[in-house]
Amino acid sequence: MPSLLSDADDRRRRCWVCYSYDGDEPMAEWVRPCRCRGDTKWVHQHCVQRWVDEKQRGNTALTVSCNACNAEYLIFYPPKDTLLYLMERVDQMVMHICPFFAGIVLVGSVYWTAVTYGAVSVMQVLGHSDGLRFMERMDPMMLLVGLPCIPLVLVAAKMVRWEEALVRLVRTYGPKLFRLRSRPAPRQSLQQQQQQPVQPPPQPPPVEFGLAAHPVSVSRVLCGALALPTVSTVVGKLLFRRVSSSLQRTLLGCFAFVVLKGLTKLIYHQKKWLFVTDRRVLNHPDGTDEDT
Amino acid sequence: MPSLLSDADDRRRRCWVCYSYDGDEPMAEWVRPCRCRGDTKWVHQHCVQRWVDEKQRGNTALTVSCNACNAEYLIFYPPKDTLLYLMERVDQMVMHICPFFAGIVLVGSVYWTAVTYGAVSVMQVLGHSDGLRFMERMDPMMLLVGLPCIPLVLVAAKMVRWEEALVRLVRTYGPKLFRLRSRPAPRQSLQQQQQQPVQPPPQPPPVEFGLAAHPVSVSRVLCGALALPTVSTVVGKLLFRRVSSSLQRTLLGCFAFVVLKGLTKLIYHQKKWLFVTDRRVLNHPDGTDEDT
Repeated sequence: MPSLLSDADDRRRRCWVCYSYDGDEPMAEWVRPCRCRGDTKWVHQHCVQRWVDEKQRGNTALTVSCNACNAEYLIFYPPKDTLLYLMERVDQMVMHICPFFAGIVLVGSVYWTAVTYGAVSVMQVLGHSDGLRFMERMDPMMLLVGLPCIPLVLVAAKMVRWEEALVRLVRTYGPKLFRLRSRPAPRQSLQQQQQQPVQPPPQPPPVEFGLAAHPVSVSRVLCGALALPTVSTVVGKLLFRRVSSSLQRTLLGCFAFVVLKGLTKLIYHQKKWLFVTDRRVLNHPDGTDEDT
Repeated sequence: MPSLLSDADDRRRRCWVCYSYDGDEPMAEWVRPCRCRGDTKWVHQHCVQRWVDEKQRGNTALTVSCNACNAEYLIFYPPKDTLLYLMERVDQMVMHICPFFAGIVLVGSVYWTAVTYGAVSVMQVLGHSDGLRFMERMDPMMLLVGLPCIPLVLVAAKMVRWEEALVRLVRTYGPKLFRLRSRPAPRQSLQQQQQQPVQPPPQPPPVEFGLAAHPVSVSRVLCGALALPTVSTVVGKLLFRRVSSSLQRTLLGCFAFVVLKGLTKLIYHQKKWLFVTDRRVLNHPDGTDEDT
């Protein structure tokens, strides 16, 4: 196929994609899609098409620019027929709507689990048959709103960290005896004891000690909150067997459990605090007392 | 309080936490907890305690080392009483068990939603009363295993991308007429037309064009899979009104919908492919044909 360019001109153009020259593929169409000059000016039409494919990844609405000179490629597209246009719009619409629907599925799933948990809790607290009767008598709309609120309220209540407020209170205003006590002397060398004859009383750690160690463990709050109805039922049955009303028994069990747990936590944190009050950092054995 | 160190010695020690010297706080206890010398050798006992608190954050089992010389601090702890030891063990156990139980809650929630979805689907496909009767007749264990399998199977089936395999097949082996057609000539300057008298036929884009653009959209797969029973029921009722059996009608509706959707997808992808076949990158208007 004769070219209008001379042989000398032929060798001048070189494709920046496939590195072949003008004469190598006589049938190939050349294009200069951007403002670049020199080695990156010319490119084969079919080579730059591959490059555009790579950039657009099927989305022909995307513009493609030269990486070097930033000039936007001028791309000619044939007119779209109505069917293709409609199909593209539907495809885009579906792409946009799907995450929204997936979100609804997720929220619905959480909601449904909360409703079920609420219903099971009502039956646990009121007793199986009484609970069923109670829910049957209630307005269905009230049930659909009220039941999922049960786990929500439990989790919210669990987030109120009243035990820690109590621990702070005891540490700040509690009896001195409970806050400080004599501590066993740590083993120290004779030399050190001579050097530091005055042993000041141990200072208690700050009131907040240990309370912010596990700020809010999501799993612990969740498990504690969701287990409360079951635990309350069990404690109620163990401690208040004589109470005939299931609701009263479970509420008493709940109260007893919460108070017991709060006190245990108070004692635990206080014991840890006192333990740390008696902690002492010792001199390193490698060092000497003389400063260098 | 008289110190055993002379006044000159007094001024030598300086706390690396509070920067005060020996004489500033006569009651304070000094300690050299690491191998450091010079300015970072000495520190007040109560100052280093605060530093240790900061590092341990309530977990007294943690060792603390000097940031500069890496020497581990020797820390004296009073003996732990049994109650504190037990409480610590219980606390640690709860900390370890809670994420596990939270996982069970999560899995249980997903499972319960899947069971409910399965039951609703059965009632949709078989009709409300027939579906209920079918589930009542079945073994409860079979239901608890079978029902959650329904959404699983639907999602798994949706992941089989048979339409794309069909598109690839058509593009590779389909009739030439369907793959290539005459394309309208893009507007080009007269000069360019003279320079490139031979217009090679447009090359079709690779067979994979557009198929890998949206690899697997999780939300799309999920929505498509979970909507199938509802869509099938609706299509069945619209197209196969005369079929009396609810199961048969829904299955026919499902088949019709899947085939229709597959064909639409095939046409859409093929139209897009042809559209891109006719795409052409044009010369940039700023450039000249002479190379520099």
